[in-house]
Amino acid sequence: MRIGILGGGQLGRMFIQEALKYDNEFYVLDPSADCPSANIAQVTLGNFNNYDEVLAFGQGKEVLTMEIEHINVAALETLEKQGVKVIPSPGIVKMIQQKILQKRFYKEKGIPSPNFSVYRKGEAVPDRSFPFVQKLNTGGYDGKGVQVIENKGQLSLLWEEDSVLEDLVEVKKELSVIVAKNENGETRTFPVTEMVADPELNLLDFNICPAEISPSVGLQVQNITRKFLSCIDSPGLFAIELFWDKNDKVWVNEIAPRLHNSGHQTQEGNYNSQFEQFYRVLCNLPLADTGHRAFSGMLNLVGEKGYEGKVIYEGLEEVLRLPKTYVHLYGKKETRSGRKMGHINVVADTRAELVKKLSQIKSGVKVRSRGQRDM
Amino acid sequence: MRIGILGGGQLGRMFIQEALKYDNEFYVLDPSADCPSANIAQVTLGNFNNYDEVLAFGQGKEVLTMEIEHINVAALETLEKQGVKVIPSPGIVKMIQQKILQKRFYKEKGIPSPNFSVYRKGEAVPDRSFPFVQKLNTGGYDGKGVQVIENKGQLSLLWEEDSVLEDLVEVKKELSVIVAKNENGETRTFPVTEMVADPELNLLDFNICPAEISPSVGLQVQNITRKFLSCIDSPGLFAIELFWDKNDKVWVNEIAPRLHNSGHQTQEGNYNSQFEQFYRVLCNLPLADTGHRAFSGMLNLVGEKGYEGKVIYEGLEEVLRLPKTYVHLYGKKETRSGRKMGHINVVADTRAELVKKLSQIKSGVKVRSRGQRDM
Repeated sequence: MRIGILGGGQLGRMFIQEALKYDNEFYVLDPSADCPSANIAQVTLGNFNNYDEVLAFGQGKEVLTMEIEHINVAALETLEKQGVKVIPSPGIVKMIQQKILQKRFYKEKGIPSPNFSVYRKGEAVPDRSFPFVQKLNTGGYDGKGVQVIENKGQLSLLWEEDSVLEDLVEVKKELSVIVAKNENGETRTFPVTEMVADPELNLLDFNICPAEISPSVGLQVQNITRKFLSCIDSPGLFAIELFWDKNDKVWVNEIAPRLHNSGHQTQEGNYNSQFEQFYRVLCNLPLADTGHRAFSGMLNLVGEKGYEGKVIYEGLEEVLRLPKTYVHLYGKKETRSGRKMGHINVVADTRAELVKKLSQIKSGVKVRSRGQRDM
Repeated sequence: MRIGILGGGQLGRMFIQEALKYDNEFYVLDPSADCPSANIAQVTLGNFNNYDEVLAFGQGKEVLTMEIEHINVAALETLEKQGVKVIPSPGIVKMIQQKILQKRFYKEKGIPSPNFSVYRKGEAVPDRSFPFVQKLNTGGYDGKGVQVIENKGQLSLLWEEDSVLEDLVEVKKELSVIVAKNENGETRTFPVTEMVADPELNLLDFNICPAEISPSVGLQVQNITRKFLSCIDSPGLFAIELFWDKNDKVWVNEIAPRLHNSGHQTQEGNYNSQFEQFYRVLCNLPLADTGHRAFSGMLNLVGEKGYEGKVIYEGLEEVLRLPKTYVHLYGKKETRSGRKMGHINVVADTRAELVKKLSQIKSGVKVRSRGQRDM
C-alpha cells in the first residue's frame, strides 16, 4: 500500500516503525526536512494546512491519513471525491478541528461533556456562571488556546476569538481511552489509561494503564466509547480524553482523531500497540487484540526549561539498566523548553511498583543541551 | 551514532526497525537497491566481499557491523587499524568464515563439537569412519555447502574443495542460543530455543522457546555458552547452534557472529529482542534483560516451490485474527522457491497451545506469486 501521512512527527515515526512489519510504502508531508519521520519515509516538503499542497500530496496514494488534526480538510474532501481513501473521514476531522462543532456533536449524540455556551468574536459575552474555561474554536493544541476565567473580574482577560465557554470540571483524574473502528465496522477499545499532567508545562507527564477506577466509572467510560463508536460513520483510531470529576461522573473533554500520547505505553504494555491498531484500521484488516500484558506506564521526555540547542539526554544509561523499561527517542536533534523529545515506557507487575519506577526514572533523567540558554 | 551495516537484508531491516527507538543514522552496503533495508537506511550500492568497496563504505562510520558473515574481512582489519570500531572483531569473523579454523577453535578451547578431520583439495581423503558430514571450508550458507557421505561407495560424491569432514551426529533436537557481550565485558544469554527444520528446504522452519530440555542438557548448554563468551575477546551478538544427540550429549554445530533467524521470536516473546540486544552491544550500553514473557515460537514464511515473481501472501488475514500472533514481512517484492520472505511469531501460555497454533498457521499460510512458474 502507498500510505500518505499529513505530518512527519513522532506519531508518524512510531507508526511507520511498527508498520515496517508489513510491506508498504510510506510518504509524509511535513514542512521540515529533518522531521522525525524523515529517514524512514519519502518526505514531501510542504504545508499540510495548504489546500494545493495537500491536494498534490494526496495524488496516487492508496490511503491518506494524518498524525495531526490541524490540516487542510477541504483538500481531503476533494481527494475523497477523487477516489483516494481518507482515514478518518474529512467530516470527522472538520468536526473535531472546531471546538464549537465538537461540543455540539457531543450534545446532539448524548455524549456527556461539560455544559457550554458559544462565544463569537465581537458579540456580547454570554451570561454564565463562573469559573469557566475558554477554549478557542480553532488552533488549540497541547494546552494552548485554553484558559480558565475564575470570576467576573477576569472577564477582561477573555480572548476576543470564536470560542467555547465551558463549565470548569473539578477533576479527580484525567482518563483516556484509545478506540478503533475499521471499514468493516469492527471496533476495539484499549484499556482505560490514567493521565497525570505537569501543571507547569500543561503537557501529559505520566500515563498509567490500566487506570485505577471504580466499576461505576468504568461503566460510564464504556458507555461513552460505545456511543462514540456507534455514532461515527468513519473508520479511524481516536483518543477519547475524559474528566473523572469529584462527584464520580465522567465527561468527555475532547477527542483526537489520531494516534495519541496517552497510548504510547501500549508499545510494550499491551499485546498490540496503538500503532499496530492504526495500521490495521488504515488497511481494513481485522483489528488487533488490545489486552494488556501487565501494568504499564509512560513518562514523557520533555526539554527542560532553560536549555535550547543540540539535545543531550542525561541519565539514560542508568535507565537502560532497569528491566522492563523502554526508551523511545523521536530523532529530534534540537531541544527546547517543553518540547517532546521522547518517552520512556515501563512495565510492572503491580501498580505500586510501576509508580515507584516511573518516579525514580523521572528524577534521574534530564533533557538538556550543552549550553544553557540565556534566561 | 553513524552505524554502518554490511548487508541490507531482513536482519538489518529488523535491527534498524528496533533501533529507531534511539537517535542514530543507519547506513547499509548491499548490491541491491531494493534490499529490505532500502527505505529505512542510506544505501550504498556495492559488494560487501570487495576490499575497496567495504573500505570506502567504512569511512566516517562510528561503528561498523554486518548482518552476514560472508564479507571482506581484510577491509575490516584495515578499517579497525584506522580507528573505526568494528563489531564483532574481524578476527572472530575470519575464524567463523572458515570452517577449518572454526573447528580448530572449538577443539583448542575445549568446546564440545563433533570430531573432525581436514580435507584439502587435491590431497588424499583422510581415512575415517562413516557416515560423515562434509562441510566446505568457505561459502556454506543456509544448508548449502553441506552433504552427508554415508559409506565408502559414496566417496566419489565428495566435493573436491577444502573442507571439514565431521562425524555425523544422531540428532535428537537442534537447539540454539543467542548470546551477547559488550565492550565492557558484560554478557547476557537468551533462553535456549528449539529448532525444527524442514527436511526438504533445509531452512529453519519452527522455533520454540524456551526449549524442552532436561537439566543435564541445560547445564551442558550453559557450560558451552559460558566457555564461548569467556574465550572471545570481541564484543558481539552470536547465535550458537547446537546438536542435542541421542545420548543426551550437546555439541556445537556452528556459531554465527550476528543476528540469527533462531532469535526472531524474541521480538514479542521476550522482554527485549535480539535486535535490541544487538543495538546495545554496538553502542556498549548496559545489556538488556533477556527473560521470556511466555512460550514463544516462530514460523518462517518461505516462498513455495513452483512460484516465482511478485509475491502474494495467502491466508495472512486469517492469521491477523489470532491473538498474540505477529506477522513480520521483509519487504521483498519477489518470491522464489525457498526464499525467506517473512516470519510469524506466536506467543502462548503453554507449549502445547504454542505448537498447536504454529501448526494451524503453517497449514493456512502460503507464499506464492500470481503466475505459477513452468516446472
